[in-house]
Amino acid sequence: MPSEFELIRTYFSRPTPQAVLGPGDDCALLAPSAGSELAITTDMLVEGTHFLADTDPWQLGWKALAVNLSDLAAMGAKPRWALLAGSLPEVRAAWLASFAEGVFACASRYAVDLVGGDTTRGPLNLCFTVLGEVPVGTALRRDRALSGDDIWVSGWPGLAALGLAELQGRTRLPEALAKRCLAALQRPIPRVELGLELRRRGLANAAIDVSDGLLADLGHVLERSAVAAEVFAGRLPLRSAGADPLLARQCQLAGGDDYELVFSALPARRVELAALAAELDLPLWRIGRMVGAAESRLTLLDENGDEMAVDSRGYDHFG
Amino acid sequence: MPSEFELIRTYFSRPTPQAVLGPGDDCALLAPSAGSELAITTDMLVEGTHFLADTDPWQLGWKALAVNLSDLAAMGAKPRWALLAGSLPEVRAAWLASFAEGVFACASRYAVDLVGGDTTRGPLNLCFTVLGEVPVGTALRRDRALSGDDIWVSGWPGLAALGLAELQGRTRLPEALAKRCLAALQRPIPRVELGLELRRRGLANAAIDVSDGLLADLGHVLERSAVAAEVFAGRLPLRSAGADPLLARQCQLAGGDDYELVFSALPARRVELAALAAELDLPLWRIGRMVGAAESRLTLLDENGDEMAVDSRGYDHFG
Repeated sequence: MPSEFELIRTYFSRPTPQAVLGPGDDCALLAPSAGSELAITTDMLVEGTHFLADTDPWQLGWKALAVNLSDLAAMGAKPRWALLAGSLPEVRAAWLASFAEGVFACASRYAVDLVGGDTTRGPLNLCFTVLGEVPVGTALRRDRALSGDDIWVSGWPGLAALGLAELQGRTRLPEALAKRCLAALQRPIPRVELGLELRRRGLANAAIDVSDGLLADLGHVLERSAVAAEVFAGRLPLRSAGADPLLARQCQLAGGDDYELVFSALPARRVELAALAAELDLPLWRIGRMVGAAESRLTLLDENGDEMAVDSRGYDHFG
Repeated sequence: MPSEFELIRTYFSRPTPQAVLGPGDDCALLAPSAGSELAITTDMLVEGTHFLADTDPWQLGWKALAVNLSDLAAMGAKPRWALLAGSLPEVRAAWLASFAEGVFACASRYAVDLVGGDTTRGPLNLCFTVLGEVPVGTALRRDRALSGDDIWVSGWPGLAALGLAELQGRTRLPEALAKRCLAALQRPIPRVELGLELRRRGLANAAIDVSDGLLADLGHVLERSAVAAEVFAGRLPLRSAGADPLLARQCQLAGGDDYELVFSALPARRVELAALAAELDLPLWRIGRMVGAAESRLTLLDENGDEMAVDSRGYDHFG
């Protein structure tokens, strides 16, 4: 059986041109760019909680890194470095090789160096820490939304949750839609370029990524910014023809795992945002507005302007 | 049952004066010091592999952070920030409160801000990531030992492993020694001040912390520096009177979990190192020397200068 050190060397040692010192010492050494702040986040993925035992290892590797890069995207930070700690119940070389391929496919897509980590024995658990950079004082934050801001969401929220419903046999989607939804679930695309451009162009006042569900994550922005919101459900994109409309709506509003960005922006920036959407070939949907209020309430309105009940806002592991 | 967010807020939100933005957004924001490099490391502790289910939560909190700070110490980096991701099988408020007290006791002792993290449900697993700073180009590394260097070790290697043997009923220590050994095992002291002073005074050529065992960790330095070593077992400190001498020697050479520093230094620095030991009130033992050789061999010599067999060099999780 190969040793822990051989394992790491075999599958996880790749060049780290962005590091002063990569894996192999007590710490990695990094040289932050002058005039930048570091954005850093860590996420733990557990078998049975976040993914199933039979999850394809390549997809798991991609997704474990991608969901962390999504947090950098939400701050408008440029991804640079990652560390991976993992516990494994056993050494399965084929599994590890495929998992590493998925990790490095995502890392090279977003120009991230894997600079360090830890491997140990235990129930399957993967913990990424990622670091990005952002010019001093320009990071997108949750606590900067203003009353009067438009509320925007990128891409196709809800597809990942529909994909999960399909996987779990809770619904039966047409083949093309099922494929699209499973891709959204298994190989999410962090909106790194969108976050970078929103930050560089100063277009967004506040931003967050949708990991727990659109309403739940928007709720965090409201709370941190001390504003309320009106969301018009009818403005949400419909690209799930063939799915149960009620389920599709539920997935859009409350489904997790999308990794789209939700952000707020001044109404004066609508034309620039439309131009950015075209440049990035990524739809941006204006789904509501921030309003001043005594409490951070979210009001959801249907196509007729009638108020809808807001429940099941998202997924809370200990809720 | 309190939600995940309430949990984190209740037990893990403390002021983060060293962060631009602490917990509560997609990322923490940090402002690295000009002229510094970042040292970063991550370590995963798993129940059943690294600690037992009935481990005192305060001690676990202290140790989980301390072992990471030890990696910063080995680079001569000043600890600044930490992130903690954890998976928990259930929410036990008393356990969490005590665990958090242990974490923050260690964090405040070493002036570290807990700037972010993640909490999820799953088998008990704790993953710390810590960041420190070191002036550009001055970090202590494993790959800088020179033939002719003295080899030094700090403190009292072997006590933690003796404490584990006592806990597991493999030996029976005198009461005072048992207490000392259990403290070394359960509340390790990372040699942060020693690492900082070795780096500031330019005293060490190479350094590593002893997590897997003295010989095993020294072996990493030899390999990375492409030198060989002679270690004189008789120069190792004996402060385990009353313990089985063979077991005590085995623990000194191959026992893990000590978090002492092993380092190499030019013979010309012996007087300065003696002065530093006195200043820090921490013994430094000159236990051998680096020698040039075709392979990174470690030769262990007994009190009579006879070569001893070197085996069981340390603990390798998948070995």
